[in-house]
Amino acid sequence: MRDVYVIGAGITPFGELWQRSLRDLFVSAARQAMVDAGVDRLDGMYVGSMSPGLLVEQEHLSSLLADYLGVLPAPCVRVESACASGGAAFRSAFFEVASGASDVVLAGGVEKMTDADDVTRALATASDQEYEAFHGITFPGLYAMMARAHMRQHGTTREEIAAVAVKNHENALENPNAHLGMRISIDQVIASSPVADPLRLLDCAPVSDGACALILGSEDQAKRAKGPLVRVTGVGAATDAIALHARSDVASLEAVARAAAKAYAMSSRGPRDIDLAEVHDCFTIAEIMAIEALGLVDRGRGGAATSAGETSRRGRIPVNISGGLKAKGHPVGATGVAQIFEIVTQLRGAAGKRQIANARIGLAQNMGGTGGSATVHILEAV
Amino acid sequence: MRDVYVIGAGITPFGELWQRSLRDLFVSAARQAMVDAGVDRLDGMYVGSMSPGLLVEQEHLSSLLADYLGVLPAPCVRVESACASGGAAFRSAFFEVASGASDVVLAGGVEKMTDADDVTRALATASDQEYEAFHGITFPGLYAMMARAHMRQHGTTREEIAAVAVKNHENALENPNAHLGMRISIDQVIASSPVADPLRLLDCAPVSDGACALILGSEDQAKRAKGPLVRVTGVGAATDAIALHARSDVASLEAVARAAAKAYAMSSRGPRDIDLAEVHDCFTIAEIMAIEALGLVDRGRGGAATSAGETSRRGRIPVNISGGLKAKGHPVGATGVAQIFEIVTQLRGAAGKRQIANARIGLAQNMGGTGGSATVHILEAV
Repeated sequence: MRDVYVIGAGITPFGELWQRSLRDLFVSAARQAMVDAGVDRLDGMYVGSMSPGLLVEQEHLSSLLADYLGVLPAPCVRVESACASGGAAFRSAFFEVASGASDVVLAGGVEKMTDADDVTRALATASDQEYEAFHGITFPGLYAMMARAHMRQHGTTREEIAAVAVKNHENALENPNAHLGMRISIDQVIASSPVADPLRLLDCAPVSDGACALILGSEDQAKRAKGPLVRVTGVGAATDAIALHARSDVASLEAVARAAAKAYAMSSRGPRDIDLAEVHDCFTIAEIMAIEALGLVDRGRGGAATSAGETSRRGRIPVNISGGLKAKGHPVGATGVAQIFEIVTQLRGAAGKRQIANARIGLAQNMGGTGGSATVHILEAV
Repeated sequence: MRDVYVIGAGITPFGELWQRSLRDLFVSAARQAMVDAGVDRLDGMYVGSMSPGLLVEQEHLSSLLADYLGVLPAPCVRVESACASGGAAFRSAFFEVASGASDVVLAGGVEKMTDADDVTRALATASDQEYEAFHGITFPGLYAMMARAHMRQHGTTREEIAAVAVKNHENALENPNAHLGMRISIDQVIASSPVADPLRLLDCAPVSDGACALILGSEDQAKRAKGPLVRVTGVGAATDAIALHARSDVASLEAVARAAAKAYAMSSRGPRDIDLAEVHDCFTIAEIMAIEALGLVDRGRGGAATSAGETSRRGRIPVNISGGLKAKGHPVGATGVAQIFEIVTQLRGAAGKRQIANARIGLAQNMGGTGGSATVHILEAV
């Protein structure tokens, strides 16, 4: 396999962007990434998007977005793995460049959610239709069950879970593209409206519109681009049972652990080498389970480590500096790409007020549903 | 890039399969392909499916199908490019093996259409939502405009267009998995119910349920598998404007021509080297335009060549021996994979009554929408 670099990056603000359509959002992020990379053509393009059919009645984004971006006749496909669609698009683009077939490939993600009439129903299609969605369970309820199991098995407290939201909202204050840049307290999280016990409104990522795009390039292309080089050193993906009832342990994320093991092995790195991580905190409890599955903290200690500040911006292993899905926002298909965008920006030393000192090795973890699919990518400044 | 082979193949019957769900269909085809290849594990999996969200309220097929197929924790993603989803899934799987990252990767496709309440609306999401679907135009209308343009520019007759349906239905008589194995006449096509003038009911592919799966393997894996070796020698894909009004010529398929040029160049083959082709005949006129774009006949001669029998089973260049989308059936996401299934089966000499003598080099052409995305694959017996 050839080495693969990220040579350009672009993103839109995340939020309730009533005045912007799916195509507008994507083109804005993609054009910015192409300008950043200094390329005016693409060999290929992958777009992560979870459910544009249900959300805005538009499938076939491949043709639509290549057309509106002005890169016809570049090959393009949409990639879907529920909320891991962005990570999956990045992985497919990686293989196309690594194979030698292409030198410049765009990996993007987009979701236009706020125009839809029933977002909760659209998102529920990421669960098992026959055994979960059909019976009325939606994602807040599924993650609430996972939270209860984690609390019972590991003694995780309501306050520890809330600490994830407090940290990520604080991080988002320094991210101008964040949906919810606002300071909140543990008490406010616990006192917010109940959604699915024990989860409250401030435990849940918002419904956002947004897009993000990265340009992957071969070594030759990377040397031609301006700015510090960022290489993709680890790529891992895995699946798990889609339905929660079919898992051996609902308080852990096995697909994340397996995807991480692959990415660590490929990059010859381990959890202790990681300088910062962006993880999939669609609900507060998800971040606690993710940092455990990635080995960034010991199993069962995710809540305690968060409360102790180990994952804060000035902690041992900063997690979700961007604000995470929780506060930066969660336009589903864009999320996995935006996580890698944050890592790339930090490794380039271009993160402004939220820059982490000496960021050399970063990790991005994206997952679909309740963890039925997962991707982990490791990137390094070279 | 490493050489890539097709080492296993499986398919379900295509048709109105009321008693079978999306997961049942996929697992049946995929299990058959794994048994055929002699493998009991996968390094990865790609599933082409156009719109399971709108059709059966199930996204996240990656996790669902890896789970039900029993290949957890193999990485899997769904790939979508409207009716070219199957071809796009095959292409993504190709890159994963060609890159050296994986040795055994499944490329499958599935669509469960007959349970949906509004299939025409779901399919219309493959057109431009803002400029086409919103205003009420659906695919029969779009292809009718393309047919009118072809008739005007090239003098193509109503009888020549009908000859595509007559040929493909006759071919389907020898395909036990075909949805519509029945003999029809030119007069019957022209006298069938009007759908969108000049297209009639017998010009349109049916709405079908079905699944198909192929196993792609490295050279080492191919040598271990039983049966004749089939190598993927050409891979091409391209995009065009999604909306018909934005094309320079609505009577030709530019994305198909560009995808073919790439596949021909990669394989060092040309149209005259092709022994048989499976092309995307979602409507009769589409086959005429496809064989022209592929260079199998001169531009403008698609209708006349079909009428003259050049593309029949015993003709100069047999096209859609399987029955094509028109008569084999068109479960959208499965279609592109099923085209390659037919080529592989013919190259292996395993096509039974519909076997073409001396089939050594085959081509499969898949497209989305009115040709906004297209893939072309060339396979050779080695």
